[in-house]
Amino acid sequence: MRIVALAGGIGGARFLRGLKQAVPGDGEQTEITVIGNTGDDIHLYGLKVCPDLDTVMYTLGGGINEEQGWGRAAETWSVKEEMKAYGVGPEWFGLGDRDFATHIVRTQMIAAGYPLSAVTEALCARWKPGVRLLPMSDDRVETHVLIEDRDAPGGRRAVHFQEYWVRLHAEVDAQAIVPVGAEESKPAPGVIEAIGEADVILLPPSNPVVSIGTVLAVPGIRQAVVEAEAPVVGLSPIIGGAPVRGMADKVLAAVGVETTAAAVAKHYGPGLLDGWLVDTADAAAVPEVEEAGIACRAVPLWMSSVEASAEMARAALALAAEVRG
Amino acid sequence: MRIVALAGGIGGARFLRGLKQAVPGDGEQTEITVIGNTGDDIHLYGLKVCPDLDTVMYTLGGGINEEQGWGRAAETWSVKEEMKAYGVGPEWFGLGDRDFATHIVRTQMIAAGYPLSAVTEALCARWKPGVRLLPMSDDRVETHVLIEDRDAPGGRRAVHFQEYWVRLHAEVDAQAIVPVGAEESKPAPGVIEAIGEADVILLPPSNPVVSIGTVLAVPGIRQAVVEAEAPVVGLSPIIGGAPVRGMADKVLAAVGVETTAAAVAKHYGPGLLDGWLVDTADAAAVPEVEEAGIACRAVPLWMSSVEASAEMARAALALAAEVRG
Repeated sequence: MRIVALAGGIGGARFLRGLKQAVPGDGEQTEITVIGNTGDDIHLYGLKVCPDLDTVMYTLGGGINEEQGWGRAAETWSVKEEMKAYGVGPEWFGLGDRDFATHIVRTQMIAAGYPLSAVTEALCARWKPGVRLLPMSDDRVETHVLIEDRDAPGGRRAVHFQEYWVRLHAEVDAQAIVPVGAEESKPAPGVIEAIGEADVILLPPSNPVVSIGTVLAVPGIRQAVVEAEAPVVGLSPIIGGAPVRGMADKVLAAVGVETTAAAVAKHYGPGLLDGWLVDTADAAAVPEVEEAGIACRAVPLWMSSVEASAEMARAALALAAEVRG
Repeated sequence: MRIVALAGGIGGARFLRGLKQAVPGDGEQTEITVIGNTGDDIHLYGLKVCPDLDTVMYTLGGGINEEQGWGRAAETWSVKEEMKAYGVGPEWFGLGDRDFATHIVRTQMIAAGYPLSAVTEALCARWKPGVRLLPMSDDRVETHVLIEDRDAPGGRRAVHFQEYWVRLHAEVDAQAIVPVGAEESKPAPGVIEAIGEADVILLPPSNPVVSIGTVLAVPGIRQAVVEAEAPVVGLSPIIGGAPVRGMADKVLAAVGVETTAAAVAKHYGPGLLDGWLVDTADAAAVPEVEEAGIACRAVPLWMSSVEASAEMARAALALAAEVRG
């Protein structure tokens, strides 16, 4: 079975860990391809940082800081201390020493001429995440957020997504989400092929706007998913009207979508989704989603453990089998 | 009093610390300008590393690892561990996490268009070394060492100085020392002016070939020192026929110079040196040096403490005053 999953950072990574547990292991010929969001990539200290790719890689490779969900386990912070002593920022972005090493290796390879997809493959040769991890694109796409700023000309200004998310904690309203460079970007090698050859396509409970939405904004990817023969099943990142994690409500509002499990399903659209899982707390939303032409089931969607995530993955695969007919 | 010192790494830095203690402090209008060797600079992991400049900066700024003489105090090694896990070398070069931060900041500034001299000034704004630290040149000069290699075409090959020194421990004979790029390099801004305006010019007991020799190889610097009105006084890095530290004998042999205090003085030449200090163990060499037209005194030259180094600096300044007449 060939499974393709589009994924952001923490939520996507935790779901994927469950998925790996849910499907038959090596030798059983289950192949998982993950198409990772790179819209929240950022250049810091002259280094290319890919937070979502790294969160997937570290989580599936056993190197993640479990408690915070991002960054490395057994991390040290000497480089960051020194940066502060040099007066070099930004202070608000947390990069530990071990994490720095990943970015140094990545930046060195990119400077040597390797595309991000080849670099990611090289990094994964160490981490052995058990999935094929592809960046959505080798081209630079950077999600910017338009926020109100009375002091700026026109009363608003654009900030990098990381600045909005990490520094501002999404406490300022987002007026628009702009994946800068997306229109000119091309899917990374293997992305379209993987989607076309998939038996199942999954949308983990990642952020529908700035994670999965950005992946779908790369020209060709949305179309490939829509046209794929495989059933497309998503999992709601919204439970009981609030994001499971992070501040998805803020970016949903920016694109005019209500923070409900049903609204997110309809935002993806029946042209894209064949099936949708909502949490049992949102069971009442099932008819509304099904009316929109999307098969819908209510199951527990809290990823409180690897086994809970695996159970979600099993439910998603079951729904995929069902809609495939 | 304006003092100019040409300097390499550990030996130069320790002498300079003594010099700072020997001269009147702030407000007394003693200005020390250090022209640092950059011939052993190396690009590692895509980062520009300047071992000699950093050793001077860390030593005078209070951040040096006292025991090893290079690198940072209270260092951690997470990045290096990760590099090993990624299979990215070279393993033989020791860069700690705090040290990495310096190279990341430097590389970022250089990528932004700043010359090395401006970057060094910016780094020193943190370290406050109490001297004006100038790289010998903003241009890339890299000391290479020609070594025997039976497997190489022609039976020899060139290696970067750091590979010769750190990886090979200078255990292979050096056939030639080549400061690649030196001929086309220009002195960094302020270097020639500082030499011209100096009241005293000092050559610390740094390596006469790969440290001070490289500084003098930048077109214009040797001539400026020779033509300077200030007396030029050097301190022997050779005591009793052996280098005080490091493997200077190997690189002296490559340029056809005996490993003796007198031979090094004559290698610099009476056109350059006005005075020369040898260790008391080499007192017998004094007449030979003086016969060559260089005033010579025998004083203790072991930098066993800051005070011992300060005493050496006082002796050098006294000899300078004497030859100035």
